[in-house]
Amino acid sequence: MQLHPKDSIAVIFCARRTGSAEADYQVAAAAMSALAAQQPGYLGEDHARSAEGLGITISYWRDDTSAKAWRDHPDHAVIRDQGRDRWYSEYSLHVARVERSYDWQK
Amino acid sequence: MQLHPKDSIAVIFCARRTGSAEADYQVAAAAMSALAAQQPGYLGEDHARSAEGLGITISYWRDDTSAKAWRDHPDHAVIRDQGRDRWYSEYSLHVARVERSYDWQK
Repeated sequence: MQLHPKDSIAVIFCARRTGSAEADYQVAAAAMSALAAQQPGYLGEDHARSAEGLGITISYWRDDTSAKAWRDHPDHAVIRDQGRDRWYSEYSLHVARVERSYDWQK
Repeated sequence: MQLHPKDSIAVIFCARRTGSAEADYQVAAAAMSALAAQQPGYLGEDHARSAEGLGITISYWRDDTSAKAWRDHPDHAVIRDQGRDRWYSEYSLHVARVERSYDWQK
């Protein structure tokens, strides 16, 4: 639960899973989160996944250059192909520029 | 799983729940989704919630005017206050402008 600066980039990934190869998916997803966190310009990630198989991952980046560099990272590209082959039945991806942020804690 | 046009607005709401008053929360959340969907400029919603209580809801709006009108809707304001009182332990909200979108289906 983090604020991100104006003009940072939010990459909103919503995916429905096939449910197959679950263990492999978990390993790959954890590896990709860890690798993303090491990239220049990475600001953070929010993730939730419903029992019915719809998952949302939002990664936040300092700028579009760093978001695109992560998109083009060779290891990421390999896993993305595996995702389409094995794990996902459909997904959408929105790249959006943060205009304002708020947070609240009890 | 929908594409949204360039310059539409994504309102990214990430919230951790207290776990209390669950039944009331479900009723209120369903009512708010239904009411949001009736507002001018509403484009759609993605939602996922993990078993651990982290939920992400992204609502998409034609423009910032319609996103702000929903923020200021009196019924929404009442429920937001209830959320802080009863349901949420913390949340973040990012308002972001869509730059590009992709989707994929098997």
